[in-house]
Amino acid sequence: MDSMDRQADYAYMQQALELARRATIETSPNPKVGCVIVRDGQVLGQGWTQPVGQAHAEVQALHDAAAKGHDVRGATAYVTLEPCSHFGRTPPCANGLRDAGIARVVAAMQDANPQVAGRGLSILREAGVEVECGTFPDLALQARELNIGFFQRMETGKPWVRMKVAGSLDGITALSNGQSQWITGPAARQDGHQWRARADAILTGIGTVLADDPMLNVRGVDTPRQPKKIIVDSHLRISPQARVLQGGALIVCAVPDAEKQVQLEQVGAEVICLPGTNQQVDLPVLMQELGRRQINELHVEAGATLNGTLISQGCVNELLLYLAPKLLGSGAGLFNLPELTHVDQARVLQFHEISQVGDDLRVFARFK
Amino acid sequence: MDSMDRQADYAYMQQALELARRATIETSPNPKVGCVIVRDGQVLGQGWTQPVGQAHAEVQALHDAAAKGHDVRGATAYVTLEPCSHFGRTPPCANGLRDAGIARVVAAMQDANPQVAGRGLSILREAGVEVECGTFPDLALQARELNIGFFQRMETGKPWVRMKVAGSLDGITALSNGQSQWITGPAARQDGHQWRARADAILTGIGTVLADDPMLNVRGVDTPRQPKKIIVDSHLRISPQARVLQGGALIVCAVPDAEKQVQLEQVGAEVICLPGTNQQVDLPVLMQELGRRQINELHVEAGATLNGTLISQGCVNELLLYLAPKLLGSGAGLFNLPELTHVDQARVLQFHEISQVGDDLRVFARFK
Repeated sequence: MDSMDRQADYAYMQQALELARRATIETSPNPKVGCVIVRDGQVLGQGWTQPVGQAHAEVQALHDAAAKGHDVRGATAYVTLEPCSHFGRTPPCANGLRDAGIARVVAAMQDANPQVAGRGLSILREAGVEVECGTFPDLALQARELNIGFFQRMETGKPWVRMKVAGSLDGITALSNGQSQWITGPAARQDGHQWRARADAILTGIGTVLADDPMLNVRGVDTPRQPKKIIVDSHLRISPQARVLQGGALIVCAVPDAEKQVQLEQVGAEVICLPGTNQQVDLPVLMQELGRRQINELHVEAGATLNGTLISQGCVNELLLYLAPKLLGSGAGLFNLPELTHVDQARVLQFHEISQVGDDLRVFARFK
Repeated sequence: MDSMDRQADYAYMQQALELARRATIETSPNPKVGCVIVRDGQVLGQGWTQPVGQAHAEVQALHDAAAKGHDVRGATAYVTLEPCSHFGRTPPCANGLRDAGIARVVAAMQDANPQVAGRGLSILREAGVEVECGTFPDLALQARELNIGFFQRMETGKPWVRMKVAGSLDGITALSNGQSQWITGPAARQDGHQWRARADAILTGIGTVLADDPMLNVRGVDTPRQPKKIIVDSHLRISPQARVLQGGALIVCAVPDAEKQVQLEQVGAEVICLPGTNQQVDLPVLMQELGRRQINELHVEAGATLNGTLISQGCVNELLLYLAPKLLGSGAGLFNLPELTHVDQARVLQFHEISQVGDDLRVFARFK
């Protein structure tokens, strides 16, 4: 292939990625995918994943081409993820592309779903379709980032866990008298709601529920649906009147209490018991359970205690940290972690993205 | 003036700024200035401030033009700061440009030195030289940043005080057992030495001297001279054998001790007494004294106690904060500050520049 063709391939894949970004969170638990169908420099059709149960990107793009009266035979399809090969809620996209007479498929990356994992590409190759996959590592990375929760779940059975914390530049989340509103500014708080909106579920602990009685929903940001709510409450201390229970919630305890459970179920909550050591919820098992429930991205907004325990038990993939340009000097730190005797024992992360949001600093850091 | 001329002016001023950046710290206490002399699109000469007592940028540029056999009569001189008007260690540059027959002077900004402050431009205007000043606000800002300590001292009589602190992402500078080496990585440590090198003086407290016996000098970075060393030691507890005293130091106490002072002077240290309240050094008065001693930029590397006191007393202009991508959980915080009862009482800063240095985050934040 000459370099002009390669440049064109790159540009069409970027276009497919742009389309993938139009997919809403309603595609979840499916990944967000974009597709562009091109022949002789003309875009015949394009599409992106529709809400779960509806058309995938490839089918949308084929429909789009048909609606415009284009014949796609001999065309190239650019897709940001390997076309699926299995009958799930919809028929396999690999078959759809094959049957439509597509001559060449360029995929940004292979699907990690064990039900696909190369089979989609095989179906196409076996039908004589020319197939390329993963040619552009930077675009493959973008496709992966867009669906980081999906890939995490496919590869580990657990969600991608993003922990949001806000504090002052000197690492204080609340004054000694408990006051914490508002350390960061309105732009950071709204940005935080955008990250809530992107998640499949939001998790908090009973400490935060008792202290703040939060709604734990998405506010001030357009969203097609509210994330699920999950409360870690080892001893079922939550009140059935807690605001977090409005619209339903999953309460996870370690010590069952049949009477309390009935009260909570009467207000629409689900209660499960995942006992670990010391009458505390087994958090790694909870993550497995959330993976089983097809939670791709989990957003954690909890207090320093649950945050520290989640980190200590290796349940967190990424910190989303808002740091205000302020010094508070003393008060509660960001995370309650066991005391170290040597700096080498520190939990190590890697900075992923740093930016300013309003007056505040936003830091994404990932655990190694 | 048409827009082509304006573009050319901008480009030559950028070039003058590049030249100013070549000036070393040896220009201090004078500002770093660059100068380009141009006629009909030809650069006739260029220069930058030489070590203190030697030629200023304008004189260097005139020499450069003469050495190349160029006649500068009728030419334009671009200077990053208003030419000086007073006889200091060298004769006034405004006179030099006028006498050389320069027809037009474009200055990035006016000098804040009360001995100049517009007089340099007046001398030129009165001699019929066309004068422009401050036409490009972004370049004026760059010229100011390059000499931020000089401007601070001219405007307030005190140095620009930059406080360097390193810690973990959760705001811990040392474990509870005192261990703090090494939280940040080698790139951040070397970068810290570059900021030491740029300063006229480095300040620390007796606590750090007794705990770490630091050299407090510039290492691993090329520098034409070592910064002065200043130790805040209210009760003259320092040992005459302390490594920080090698090469000389200024020790500032609050409680005089004639015998100890003699011992310290015998190893080459200077001792002054600036008593404040509670037998502690009067830090704001110390900053005035350092301004009087022509310290433009003061680099502070102290412990959480002196850091907190300096901040509380409004003696700090800028934080240079290195944050390692690590969580330490508990230990010593970044600054010992009085406990607050309301978030609104926080010391407020503004993020100035954020970047990554090696694996670590480097944050410049300025007090409002």
